Amino acid sequence: MTNPALIDELKTLVEPGKVLTDADSLNAYGKDWTKHFAPAPTAIVFPKTIEQVQAIVRWANRHGVALVPSGGRTGLSAAAVAAHGEVVVSFDYMNQILDINLTDRTAVCQPGVVTEQLQNQAEEHGLYYPVDFASAGSSQIGGNIGTNAGGIKVIRYGMTRNWVAGMKVVTGKGDVLELNKDLIKNATGYDLRQLFIGAEGTLGFVVEATMRLDRAPKNLTCMVLGTPDFDSIMPVLHAFHSKLDLTAFEFFSDKALAKVLARGDVPAPFESDCPFYALLEFEATSEEVANDALATFEHCVEQGWVVDGVMSQSEQQLHNLWKLREYISETISHWTPYKNDISVTVSKVPGFLKEIEAIVGEHYPDFEIVWFGHIGDGNLHLNILKPENLSKDEFFAKCATVNKWVFETVEKYNGSISAEHGVGMTKRDYLTYSRSPAEIEYMKAIKAVFDPNGIMNPGKIFAV
Amino acid sequence: MTNPALIDELKTLVEPGKVLTDADSLNAYGKDWTKHFAPAPTAIVFPKTIEQVQAIVRWANRHGVALVPSGGRTGLSAAAVAAHGEVVVSFDYMNQILDINLTDRTAVCQPGVVTEQLQNQAEEHGLYYPVDFASAGSSQIGGNIGTNAGGIKVIRYGMTRNWVAGMKVVTGKGDVLELNKDLIKNATGYDLRQLFIGAEGTLGFVVEATMRLDRAPKNLTCMVLGTPDFDSIMPVLHAFHSKLDLTAFEFFSDKALAKVLARGDVPAPFESDCPFYALLEFEATSEEVANDALATFEHCVEQGWVVDGVMSQSEQQLHNLWKLREYISETISHWTPYKNDISVTVSKVPGFLKEIEAIVGEHYPDFEIVWFGHIGDGNLHLNILKPENLSKDEFFAKCATVNKWVFETVEKYNGSISAEHGVGMTKRDYLTYSRSPAEIEYMKAIKAVFDPNGIMNPGKIFAV
Repeated sequence: MTNPALIDELKTLVEPGKVLTDADSLNAYGKDWTKHFAPAPTAIVFPKTIEQVQAIVRWANRHGVALVPSGGRTGLSAAAVAAHGEVVVSFDYMNQILDINLTDRTAVCQPGVVTEQLQNQAEEHGLYYPVDFASAGSSQIGGNIGTNAGGIKVIRYGMTRNWVAGMKVVTGKGDVLELNKDLIKNATGYDLRQLFIGAEGTLGFVVEATMRLDRAPKNLTCMVLGTPDFDSIMPVLHAFHSKLDLTAFEFFSDKALAKVLARGDVPAPFESDCPFYALLEFEATSEEVANDALATFEHCVEQGWVVDGVMSQSEQQLHNLWKLREYISETISHWTPYKNDISVTVSKVPGFLKEIEAIVGEHYPDFEIVWFGHIGDGNLHLNILKPENLSKDEFFAKCATVNKWVFETVEKYNGSISAEHGVGMTKRDYLTYSRSPAEIEYMKAIKAVFDPNGIMNPGKIFAV
Repeated sequence: MTNPALIDELKTLVEPGKVLTDADSLNAYGKDWTKHFAPAPTAIVFPKTIEQVQAIVRWANRHGVALVPSGGRTGLSAAAVAAHGEVVVSFDYMNQILDINLTDRTAVCQPGVVTEQLQNQAEEHGLYYPVDFASAGSSQIGGNIGTNAGGIKVIRYGMTRNWVAGMKVVTGKGDVLELNKDLIKNATGYDLRQLFIGAEGTLGFVVEATMRLDRAPKNLTCMVLGTPDFDSIMPVLHAFHSKLDLTAFEFFSDKALAKVLARGDVPAPFESDCPFYALLEFEATSEEVANDALATFEHCVEQGWVVDGVMSQSEQQLHNLWKLREYISETISHWTPYKNDISVTVSKVPGFLKEIEAIVGEHYPDFEIVWFGHIGDGNLHLNILKPENLSKDEFFAKCATVNKWVFETVEKYNGSISAEHGVGMTKRDYLTYSRSPAEIEYMKAIKAVFDPNGIMNPGKIFAV
């Protein structure tokens, strides 16, 4: 799509200066956090109103132009990458929180509102937006909805899906739909809102979303526990889960911790070296709860599941302990990691992990493996670090070979090949490991209902 | 559909004796709790396996036979009524809990499992299935999913949708799909599971569902508070909601209470007579929480929002107080009530209720009105009782006239004409008050994807 007359027409649909075609912008707005595909959009357009989005969609339908929705571009599956001459629709100028309703505990957000912006606004009003993850400082609400973003508090609060009270969308056909009207209860036919959540922009654009807020958590308290082996992590999870309302239960390996400690700006949790660590969090609403936590810790030590541990005594210490987990992703990005984001049901984690470890040990004997993840949700992040002496292409090619075995194991355990990163382009060709051919046919037929001309983010989730 | 040869063919698809055509069975299985339509099915079929359901669907597609899914038949919108010669597919013989997993906190249920059966099984394992409502003793899980059942604990636990970890469905085309594989995190394209929840059996059959369970609630404690007027109920809700994690917040009018007390088997909550009552529930996990509740009660009394009140001191008293609310529906059923089940966002309740009261006062001056509902979710049940001297037909005709004004007010407040009872046949012709024509067209197109021959519960949600 390079016809300059079309771009001139596009410019008439938005405010002056809101279509960019310079090389820097194309490069910046054509990509997400993945590095697999070279960005190559034709133009970037910045609508400021729902009507402008609708006009862009109608223009795209008239001319058969492919559109790529673009939020904070922090995605990890190339769902927001424009690698084939598409027009990128960025929501950077639709970034306002339009209303906060304290009675309903809701915030009406334009799609370009940054996650952290919503979290902060909620906090200023004594409330809480609980979906949180490493990229909260740049990811946008529209993108969060498109990917049904998860993160570190899912065990208590669920995914983004749970927090969307209602939304306005522009479908691929150009219709504006107001979905669910922010109601708690609404039994009037199919909940189309749910279809757009996690659709990666393949059905249409989310142009406004009313997000639910929760009460602020009370006296959040964190424990980091060192375990003698991986097998001990699950009994620790069960012991704490049955006693406390956990707000998080994460894990990481000694290699992940070593990388973070090597930065020099975060203190070690305690002196003992352990092969694996669990990080858990809860609201210490009363002395009784804190005592329950300590008694459970002692029980875990007695059982031999925990070697050492620490409990935060202040907000500062809470934040420092969280850094041990939160800094992993950013720290290891230096080694160009090959990321797998896989999940099974919690009860299947131990068996699944053993098999994955065997595969990885056999096929990546020389590679450094960094494990971490949201183990309380059955979600494991398997990161393979690139050896310095290997080129990026050779490394990725080698990893792709091993994918087959990893994904076959995921399929065997009835798991997901993408727990929270989405499908985009990087997982598209592996979708059949998690979804049946019949399911994929139904998904394609649903896409055709909302986007009959295939202008919405083509090539994402499914091949064109 | 009366061709006996077709019924003979149907009989070959299931076990002997599992197709019934006698008048009593047709009458019993052809209806739900509504009384608007005379049941007139051709046959009732009772599959015992997923394969049998699939065979029935293929048979129906071959011969153009309409199927009506049938659970506990406790619906209030005639979504499970077979009034036009359909074949009813009953899940009474697929009623087993196949597995309970304590680690995942899930129960694999056949669709005919009764809600109470799941609640009891969960309790036996020290867990809790939190979706609860008056018909829990006979409603079935498949029907709960089909209607996205809500009830009395939504303020804390949400609707049935929140508790479906995964499910198997047979689509209207006859495909078996395994949706979501019970995973907590699964970002692999459209979440088709969500489409089947609340679809009232118009897309296919739910043939297995893995339901999530929660930890058992701790020391549930209930308060019933009398207020001097309706306007005081919302400040009471806000006062308690900001202090406590409520598990319920219900309300009912003096007329509702009077009907229940007249039964003679439930004691009055306290001596004062009040025009409205709030019932709230919370976990008194510590003395601090109980003290917070009492302090909030005192604050409400000081503000003049509460006239009198009582807090349960035992499990027995908890149950007795709940009866004041739970018995309303059954008690007033004696007066053949015309039920409206409407909702708006919580912040709009006061203005909305005033307008509805004015309409009702103007158009039903001689009718007795009983208000109650899940006010913490913005969900109001408006029940109009039939005067003894009026025939059922005259009464329903008169109520239908007033519907127009009620639903216009719902539309004005951006609410729902059916908060939790579904659309079925009774609300079908009013759907446009809550869903736009464009939305309805998309819904119909989605139905065509899953059920191209229109054999699945035709005439429900949409006209045929």
